[in-house]
Amino acid sequence: MPIVEAHILEGYAPLEKTRLTRALTDAVRFVVPAADEAITVLLHEYQTEAYARGGVHRDPAPARADPADLVTRYLAAMEARDLETAEGFLGDEFEMVFPASHSMNSLTELIDWAKGRYRFVTKTTEGIEAFQAGGSSIVIVRGTLAGEWPDGRPFSNIRFIDRFEVVDGRIVRQEVWNDLGEVRSA
Amino acid sequence: MPIVEAHILEGYAPLEKTRLTRALTDAVRFVVPAADEAITVLLHEYQTEAYARGGVHRDPAPARADPADLVTRYLAAMEARDLETAEGFLGDEFEMVFPASHSMNSLTELIDWAKGRYRFVTKTTEGIEAFQAGGSSIVIVRGTLAGEWPDGRPFSNIRFIDRFEVVDGRIVRQEVWNDLGEVRSA
Amino acid sequence: MPIVEAHILEGYAPLEKTRLTRALTDAVRFVVPAADEAITVLLHEYQTEAYARGGVHRDPAPARADPADLVTRYLAAMEARDLETAEGFLGDEFEMVFPASHSMNSLTELIDWAKGRYRFVTKTTEGIEAFQAGGSSIVIVRGTLAGEWPDGRPFSNIRFIDRFEVVDGRIVRQEVWNDLGEVRSA
Amino acid sequence: MPIVEAHILEGYAPLEKTRLTRALTDAVRFVVPAADEAITVLLHEYQTEAYARGGVHRDPAPARADPADLVTRYLAAMEARDLETAEGFLGDEFEMVFPASHSMNSLTELIDWAKGRYRFVTKTTEGIEAFQAGGSSIVIVRGTLAGEWPDGRPFSNIRFIDRFEVVDGRIVRQEVWNDLGEVRSA
Amino acid sequence: MPIVEAHILEGYAPLEKTRLTRALTDAVRFVVPAADEAITVLLHEYQTEAYARGGVHRDPAPARADPADLVTRYLAAMEARDLETAEGFLGDEFEMVFPASHSMNSLTELIDWAKGRYRFVTKTTEGIEAFQAGGSSIVIVRGTLAGEWPDGRPFSNIRFIDRFEVVDGRIVRQEVWNDLGEVRSA
Amino acid sequence: MPIVEAHILEGYAPLEKTRLTRALTDAVRFVVPAADEAITVLLHEYQTEAYARGGVHRDPAPARADPADLVTRYLAAMEARDLETAEGFLGDEFEMVFPASHSMNSLTELIDWAKGRYRFVTKTTEGIEAFQAGGSSIVIVRGTLAGEWPDGRPFSNIRFIDRFEVVDGRIVRQEVWNDLGEVRSA
Repeated sequence: MPIVEAHILEGYAPLEKTRLTRALTDAVRFVVPAADEAITVLLHEYQTEAYARGGVHRDPAPARADPADLVTRYLAAMEARDLETAEGFLGDEFEMVFPASHSMNSLTELIDWAKGRYRFVTKTTEGIEAFQAGGSSIVIVRGTLAGEWPDGRPFSNIRFIDRFEVVDGRIVRQEVWNDLGEVRSA
Repeated sequence: MPIVEAHILEGYAPLEKTRLTRALTDAVRFVVPAADEAITVLLHEYQTEAYARGGVHRDPAPARADPADLVTRYLAAMEARDLETAEGFLGDEFEMVFPASHSMNSLTELIDWAKGRYRFVTKTTEGIEAFQAGGSSIVIVRGTLAGEWPDGRPFSNIRFIDRFEVVDGRIVRQEVWNDLGEVRSA
Repeated sequence: MPIVEAHILEGYAPLEKTRLTRALTDAVRFVVPAADEAITVLLHEYQTEAYARGGVHRDPAPARADPADLVTRYLAAMEARDLETAEGFLGDEFEMVFPASHSMNSLTELIDWAKGRYRFVTKTTEGIEAFQAGGSSIVIVRGTLAGEWPDGRPFSNIRFIDRFEVVDGRIVRQEVWNDLGEVRSA
Repeated sequence: MPIVEAHILEGYAPLEKTRLTRALTDAVRFVVPAADEAITVLLHEYQTEAYARGGVHRDPAPARADPADLVTRYLAAMEARDLETAEGFLGDEFEMVFPASHSMNSLTELIDWAKGRYRFVTKTTEGIEAFQAGGSSIVIVRGTLAGEWPDGRPFSNIRFIDRFEVVDGRIVRQEVWNDLGEVRSA
Repeated sequence: MPIVEAHILEGYAPLEKTRLTRALTDAVRFVVPAADEAITVLLHEYQTEAYARGGVHRDPAPARADPADLVTRYLAAMEARDLETAEGFLGDEFEMVFPASHSMNSLTELIDWAKGRYRFVTKTTEGIEAFQAGGSSIVIVRGTLAGEWPDGRPFSNIRFIDRFEVVDGRIVRQEVWNDLGEVRSA
Repeated sequence: MPIVEAHILEGYAPLEKTRLTRALTDAVRFVVPAADEAITVLLHEYQTEAYARGGVHRDPAPARADPADLVTRYLAAMEARDLETAEGFLGDEFEMVFPASHSMNSLTELIDWAKGRYRFVTKTTEGIEAFQAGGSSIVIVRGTLAGEWPDGRPFSNIRFIDRFEVVDGRIVRQEVWNDLGEVRSA
């Protein structure tokens, strides 16, 4: 049965409202196992002068960027070795951890570290999921890796999963797991 | 600003309502970067006779179990090698994939496969996150592994991440990534 | 899609709320051809001190009696020739019109008039429908008549329709049509 | 007191919204004997992207035609012997029952049957009422007949009532009662 | 926490809606000591055809003029001795009471009475407050007076308070208190 | 037309809800000149677990005391010269201004100052009005004074008005105007 009414300020784009209705729908499903047709989400939108908090009218905060989209564009830039674009997606406090790596804070550090591991690697994404946890958006990317070992032999179809934390529109944490170590040692 | 009103049938337990208000709060945060104090969630609850769909009164569907809790209990049973309890959490279509493993469908299959990899392993959880994606609840567990290699040497502090899919209160898919291969081959 | 929220004072019985949710559901269907599963009705109920009109708290008006039920009981009393009970259902301004009758205002007048037409008559109801039209509840009863002509021959399976107007819990108008004249003259 | 809020998709014409507010007002009156000034109906309208069921945006279903208007136009076409227009109002499963007639399924069948009963007949409508009963709209038309008997003598002021069932914008059932038999046999 | 939703007909100007949101905010604060950021007011606006009372669509009543603004303009006209303009703000039943005055009903009466008290007086407003009490808007103006005594000596910084009743956009009562008597007799 | 829905946490006493519905009704009247019967106020009440701000359940803040009642009790204590009780109503920052007085901060200071002005004084209240202005409740008390001059002669029927500011349940400011100076100097 659940019906969800969300009251928001006017000014969000249709796609932002679609993202909001979907997120609210999934929030309901998370707790109530209602049939899809029985979960309704309604958005009420208010002009600035029809809304006040503490007696003061407010302007709408611009919507957060879709974190799944943001991560997708970051991964594409990385794969294209377009480090400048990729860095544009990172927050000041960016930290990343790769399999058996120490914590790294910059993409150049990553590039150096990766040199001993493979000549190049490409990602085929099989699933991307995003959700909110308090102030952070979490993005989970799963799929397979292909590329060449340092000696030039190819590899492919190696499982990976990346977990990203996005805060205020910037990636502040990337954690990577994959089976490269398993395969290399096989 | 956003205010969310959810209309549900009467009968959910306080903790279930807490889960619902949190999930709805996170759904809003996912799109609208409002301050915490500005995101309000209200639950309206209806007695059976105060609600009708298609002119017919309905009873509330029992809430879904908390999938994070369900997975936590499954992992505890696995660590205690209490396979009977652990299997109680699995759906008929259960499938699991471990690092460099083929797809497995039963816990005994997993036990056999793991024998050549370590004597035992324990998990220290650093984070557990759960969210809904359509009909499935997804649970992400992260942390570190400790245990003994087949030759008895200990290992510890090895990163892992598990991804679970929970449908209708049963785990139907478990995917595991970790750095055991990296460490073993180091 | 339509969702209807009705705000009412606390104190209505479950069956009265059921009648209200059904009437609201049919009101929606009358204009919007939504699937049944997509028409939701919610009743919000308010304690006296949680409701004010013009700054003054109000008590709920007792619900109207179900007019279909009221007419059913009137017809049963008539069939049992229990005129005292039947008259209890009639308003001061009661008027009735039967096939080819002049307007009549009392049940005894009806009994007199009917004497020349049949010895007795019983009604088998095939359908009863009730709806509101402004201040009046309208009840439509359809079915067949059986009984005996003045000469003792039986008749049966003769179509009839009655239209009742109910105001403030009393029948103020009864109009009757049937095929007795057709059959008698055949 | 009752206040009714109906949530509908944007796109209904003003007259359709008027029909809906009236039907909801009558639905309330059917159960709660509130003064007219105390029954308020509010329509909330939603753009497609502000509404989702099961996480999917929906388009509004076109409003049902006003069944009273539809029946009025059908009766006008019948009176004008414009059978082609009249048939356009009928559903595939159309059935009609006239006084002492067998069940008929087409207008030509009706015309044949009526030939022995009167040369022509016109209807003066005194009241038309429409309401919804589940998936059917019911229309009740009352008034008087005038016309000529087969022998050319005129008749007039003979009571009739018609009951129509309208489904998906087509008349699927017409039932007719009148006092022609009474008068003819008098 | 309180959230207030007000449902009004479409057509009010932004400033009128601002006045309404502020008045509702203060109404909440009057009873509930919530933090400002926790008091939200939302205005739902309805087109004529989306609102019905007693089944009848209604037009919005024009908003009341801001009574504080009205009184401010009246006082300015009085200070400028523009009696014609000032009288335009007064209702037919206007009554005023000044310190130690009898009740007066016209501005010329006031001018005559004041002659023996001061040559002229100007008001410096320190605070103006307006609120509603049933059908009347009450305006409280506080501040200090300056001017000249009948003998030409100046005075200044003398406290005053005026209380106005405004009904249907006209001042119907003005009551004045000040310390002129105290100072004069000192 | 206006309809006001206020959403509050459960736990307020009936009289507190009555005060809130009246304050909201007056807030509407302040801007919209609707007939009394057309202004409806509804209170929705939520259990703690059905309400969350920022994802956190909250407890209701105890209602503010009725400031008109508080001031009435303070004035009664003053008239009875029960200074201890009267001081219990005053805030730490209490300030008062009487006609031609300097600003005073304690009741004993007031008593001293008043000695030269009258032997005693009693107040007859003709009207008391309270409203909210941001964080302060304002109370306006009007009426007449009676008492004895220092020389023992009686006085009576002398107009007064008091303005109080109440913050967090304590009087922080009292301003008094009256015609004593006018009468004394007459």
